[in-house]
Amino acid sequence: MKKTARIREYGIQIGKLPRGEKNLITDVPGVKVGHVTLSREGLQTGVTAILPHDGNLFRDKVVAATHVINGFGKSIGLMQVDELGTLETPIVLTNTLNVGLAADGLVEYMLQQNPEIGVKTGTVNPVVCECNDAYLNDVRNRGVKQAHIKQAIEKASADFQEGAVGAGRGMSCYHLKGGIGSSSRVISLRDVDFTLGVLVLSNFGERGDLLVDGRKMGREIEECLQSQSFEKDKGSVIVVMATDAPVSDRQLKRILRRGVVGLARTGSYLGTGSGDVLVGFTNANRVQHFEEAPVVSQQVLNENLIDDFFRAMAEATEEAVLNSMVSAEAVTGIRQHHRETLAHYLTTLVE
Amino acid sequence: MKKTARIREYGIQIGKLPRGEKNLITDVPGVKVGHVTLSREGLQTGVTAILPHDGNLFRDKVVAATHVINGFGKSIGLMQVDELGTLETPIVLTNTLNVGLAADGLVEYMLQQNPEIGVKTGTVNPVVCECNDAYLNDVRNRGVKQAHIKQAIEKASADFQEGAVGAGRGMSCYHLKGGIGSSSRVISLRDVDFTLGVLVLSNFGERGDLLVDGRKMGREIEECLQSQSFEKDKGSVIVVMATDAPVSDRQLKRILRRGVVGLARTGSYLGTGSGDVLVGFTNANRVQHFEEAPVVSQQVLNENLIDDFFRAMAEATEEAVLNSMVSAEAVTGIRQHHRETLAHYLTTLVE
Amino acid sequence: MKKTARIREYGIQIGKLPRGEKNLITDVPGVKVGHVTLSREGLQTGVTAILPHDGNLFRDKVVAATHVINGFGKSIGLMQVDELGTLETPIVLTNTLNVGLAADGLVEYMLQQNPEIGVKTGTVNPVVCECNDAYLNDVRNRGVKQAHIKQAIEKASADFQEGAVGAGRGMSCYHLKGGIGSSSRVISLRDVDFTLGVLVLSNFGERGDLLVDGRKMGREIEECLQSQSFEKDKGSVIVVMATDAPVSDRQLKRILRRGVVGLARTGSYLGTGSGDVLVGFTNANRVQHFEEAPVVSQQVLNENLIDDFFRAMAEATEEAVLNSMVSAEAVTGIRQHHRETLAHYLTTLVE
Amino acid sequence: MKKTARIREYGIQIGKLPRGEKNLITDVPGVKVGHVTLSREGLQTGVTAILPHDGNLFRDKVVAATHVINGFGKSIGLMQVDELGTLETPIVLTNTLNVGLAADGLVEYMLQQNPEIGVKTGTVNPVVCECNDAYLNDVRNRGVKQAHIKQAIEKASADFQEGAVGAGRGMSCYHLKGGIGSSSRVISLRDVDFTLGVLVLSNFGERGDLLVDGRKMGREIEECLQSQSFEKDKGSVIVVMATDAPVSDRQLKRILRRGVVGLARTGSYLGTGSGDVLVGFTNANRVQHFEEAPVVSQQVLNENLIDDFFRAMAEATEEAVLNSMVSAEAVTGIRQHHRETLAHYLTTLVE
Repeated sequence: MKKTARIREYGIQIGKLPRGEKNLITDVPGVKVGHVTLSREGLQTGVTAILPHDGNLFRDKVVAATHVINGFGKSIGLMQVDELGTLETPIVLTNTLNVGLAADGLVEYMLQQNPEIGVKTGTVNPVVCECNDAYLNDVRNRGVKQAHIKQAIEKASADFQEGAVGAGRGMSCYHLKGGIGSSSRVISLRDVDFTLGVLVLSNFGERGDLLVDGRKMGREIEECLQSQSFEKDKGSVIVVMATDAPVSDRQLKRILRRGVVGLARTGSYLGTGSGDVLVGFTNANRVQHFEEAPVVSQQVLNENLIDDFFRAMAEATEEAVLNSMVSAEAVTGIRQHHRETLAHYLTTLVE
Repeated sequence: MKKTARIREYGIQIGKLPRGEKNLITDVPGVKVGHVTLSREGLQTGVTAILPHDGNLFRDKVVAATHVINGFGKSIGLMQVDELGTLETPIVLTNTLNVGLAADGLVEYMLQQNPEIGVKTGTVNPVVCECNDAYLNDVRNRGVKQAHIKQAIEKASADFQEGAVGAGRGMSCYHLKGGIGSSSRVISLRDVDFTLGVLVLSNFGERGDLLVDGRKMGREIEECLQSQSFEKDKGSVIVVMATDAPVSDRQLKRILRRGVVGLARTGSYLGTGSGDVLVGFTNANRVQHFEEAPVVSQQVLNENLIDDFFRAMAEATEEAVLNSMVSAEAVTGIRQHHRETLAHYLTTLVE
Repeated sequence: MKKTARIREYGIQIGKLPRGEKNLITDVPGVKVGHVTLSREGLQTGVTAILPHDGNLFRDKVVAATHVINGFGKSIGLMQVDELGTLETPIVLTNTLNVGLAADGLVEYMLQQNPEIGVKTGTVNPVVCECNDAYLNDVRNRGVKQAHIKQAIEKASADFQEGAVGAGRGMSCYHLKGGIGSSSRVISLRDVDFTLGVLVLSNFGERGDLLVDGRKMGREIEECLQSQSFEKDKGSVIVVMATDAPVSDRQLKRILRRGVVGLARTGSYLGTGSGDVLVGFTNANRVQHFEEAPVVSQQVLNENLIDDFFRAMAEATEEAVLNSMVSAEAVTGIRQHHRETLAHYLTTLVE
Repeated sequence: MKKTARIREYGIQIGKLPRGEKNLITDVPGVKVGHVTLSREGLQTGVTAILPHDGNLFRDKVVAATHVINGFGKSIGLMQVDELGTLETPIVLTNTLNVGLAADGLVEYMLQQNPEIGVKTGTVNPVVCECNDAYLNDVRNRGVKQAHIKQAIEKASADFQEGAVGAGRGMSCYHLKGGIGSSSRVISLRDVDFTLGVLVLSNFGERGDLLVDGRKMGREIEECLQSQSFEKDKGSVIVVMATDAPVSDRQLKRILRRGVVGLARTGSYLGTGSGDVLVGFTNANRVQHFEEAPVVSQQVLNENLIDDFFRAMAEATEEAVLNSMVSAEAVTGIRQHHRETLAHYLTTLVE
């Protein structure tokens, strides 16, 4: 796997909580990420799948929640996650016009794994989130097919690439190259360590607004280029959060709400055209599809101690966005549209 | 305590689940209800307090939730209940323009009980819900004073009156006399019995719409009177739900959402002027204000078995509304406004 | 078109507001409905499309809103409707596991109509709602293909069939045959008439609970059969509402919330397994995709007069559910599962 | 009126949009602000009232919305604002345990102005928001009385003080002195100028987290003091937004949601103990209490052009928080608790 520098290697420390070992969402034990990248000429897109644990997710669901910052987006499956507080499929990320085929591919995968769906038990709720990569990608072509979903799931691993890969292949962030980025934080509560990890699909922001840990990088770039971008924020960002801490669905939702802090600190003002959506889960709390006991026990966090999780969410989201940008290579796509990298400017612009 | 007939004594059986022993919200062990009734000339109002358990509620909070069917109302304290999933004061019911003084009275009571509030710990979230009894009551006078809150709390008991008492003194329901009503259901899950109880403050509906277990009672009344009421639904209804089943705040909220079924079956179409609000709690799940453990255990219901709680909520709400009406005596209040009783029509109109 | 009796022809009058001419959602001028019905052996399913007006819906959007009673469902596109208050595609109904392919078919149709999507402008938000017809239909087979969406849209007409057609082909309601039903009401405000129409895809309820205008029909059926059904409510219901009254998105949402009254009055207690979802629009308020003016004028309803719309929503929803049931023929599907009709019992059981 | 320096006078420019003439919420024509400040020994608190226009607000309501970032707070009246999309009283700010008495005072004021309330028409919805000033103020004493509300309203003016005044008297922000701050932005849409103004009651944040336009001021302060604060974020912040642009209630809510960007950029991670609440209104769209016309016309913003309002909200909120801090004098209150000013550190710490 090709290694690209991450934001810390530029001397930038986001926040004050300790990072997990890999500083990835997969620092949460059991979580895996898989990509399918489609890149040939105008087709610059793909699929990314996030798996909460190794088992059968339909039968052994994880407690989950969602939060919508700005609902100008086409993500699906969120309604049921909120109603029941559980996630029963991998989370699939792709481009906006491929949500339908991706959902069908995810359903197909789940049906193969679970012959009882639609026969002995009800149905399944696929969760597919999206951003619009139409600047670089021939999005009308709907290049992602059902089979890519299964491939992404089966390729999932605790090690995964960031940048212009998977669903991030064609994404733009602050009108530079965006895509997949990740980060994690460790929270110690009375000598027990928990991990909170974030993965973003970044595709939002206006160039002149970009902030890097307080530095007005966007303004510097525009001064350097002697041009001001008039592109609007029409992107979207998906933030996936994972933890191994025993939190309730309500607590998860509260933690997710702090992701906006990280987005704002990279320079976003949450433009109308950007569907900003968060999905989170804990694999420490499970719900059995065929549960027999009338009452089950759940561990939940002492809410008096939740602040470090809020801080972790804010920090990891900010760092994941920056990682998505510095890890990405430059991409030229449809109509010769091109996105330069943040890495380029970080190395050429002296502060 | 004067005994009035309840709807079952008219041969009317709502639903099919078994009732609790008293068919009251206080069938849930530990729950108590207290009234202060103010009745002299134009002053026809009062206070009702619902206590979830006998202990110190601020330190030993109950898991709780709310649901707003129609937010044209002035209830307070709901926002924090939803954010944190807990209730830390008794629930106080009163008339619409007395919410401020009632909240102050409830705060005063809580400060007396808890000298640490505002000094060693933060603040307290009073929950006060209301309906508008201005048809019978001189509501501009704000006759409920702070001291009445403490009195209602201290008078709380497992036995309590229904009808034109407490906060229900001046309320109207379907333009007949409304007020306080209650009912309960027993849910058996694999040989364990749980109780769900409902108390309503009923003050909603249009006369011609009244249904009694499917019978078009409102239409019969208007035919009997040879007059059609043109009063609109401007009332409101508050539904308080209690249970001893171990449910999460999300599950509580789902159960509360079924209260609307009971309201609809008594004839309401949820008029714009009626602020319809539900608050529920379980005293089987507690949250300690000064919790020290980082992680705490909570029992939650197997969601596959939640349907009987939904049915219980629908049935108990419908029956509680009818009980509030048949238990109420006729009241003449301000400007000689008068509300007749449903009992009167049930005994005079032959089906 | 085969004509089946509707609930009024059984002498049953739901509510008191006047009906529209056809007593269909298409009494709202401009609204059209189209079905594709798939029926051969185990395949008993289909597609229904509702078109808000005759023009290009993407460029000339209608003001819209949604309301989720119970989010245990897989409907898609609701998030953006709520964020922006607009609907930009026809509403497509189908079975639960076909949502992905139906969304893709709807996207394909929209791309054909609008070559600018994904090139000169952003993306499109397909709205697809679903119920689970797995009792009668081989749902795992995903028999609905992309092309069926275009067909349903192109077949749309102001005249359309109710019952076991389109998306309703395989649906069950109160464990009898359900499907597509419709009804409308006329609201007169100071000499101006407005129409509110409802179309339901009914697939909810437990047999013993069925109420027909207050009559405990479900109980009578079970007594007649000398058997009690132990099937749970696992269905779902989709309620689509249309009006030509100038209402805001917030007012639409308030009107939609009254749909639950109609559902409750047919006997539902809103079972956990039933994803109950409402989508509504007014074609009297439009939003132009390529709007140039900074400020646009919108007509909104005087909220003091909204009650008749609430009542119309409650009544039309109740009647549409009953129409879906009496209009439906009996269907035998996969595994020889069979659903009898309500019409059968209404004619054989003497009250 | 004593003039204090504001953040711009320290050479700090927040954002890029132009400011209004006074850089205050009262740049929105018709908006007025009034304070009552209570300051003697342990009593360090007060009231601030914001008036949307000069007329009778109950009869001539303004279109309004709310947004709750974190519901750990006791603000009242928000439910009805969201249901009906209107505000019918001034917005009153005070300390957390005085919400009840303040609501009663606001009701008293409204009853005096409107003799029809509770007689010929329904009731009134007081909006009172709060933060917890218990660190400096003897909050258990409930020093704010009903009469102070009327005083604050009657003293309201387009010129008003910021800092440790009114409801801000006892508030802390980032563990320095906080209180009342304001800022405004001008948005030009096709040659028409609109103003968006913000007023904050700031009482949130942890000292080490403070950011001033990207500068890690909190860290510098802690290094300077050679001590780290272990106080948690237990404050709350209220953000009031006013505009003269014709926006709908939904558009207002979307604009309000961008306030969090401003809070995050001053260093907040939205701590659990901080009830962060926003209320906004436009006085360009009115709703008449006694409206007679069935349909009324409303101007709404072309949503394609809403981004500048989002940016304005983010910028004005950030600047208002900083203004609240630099405008405030140091205060010593109950138990000799003391809060230093940000102005002190901005002038002593060289960047």
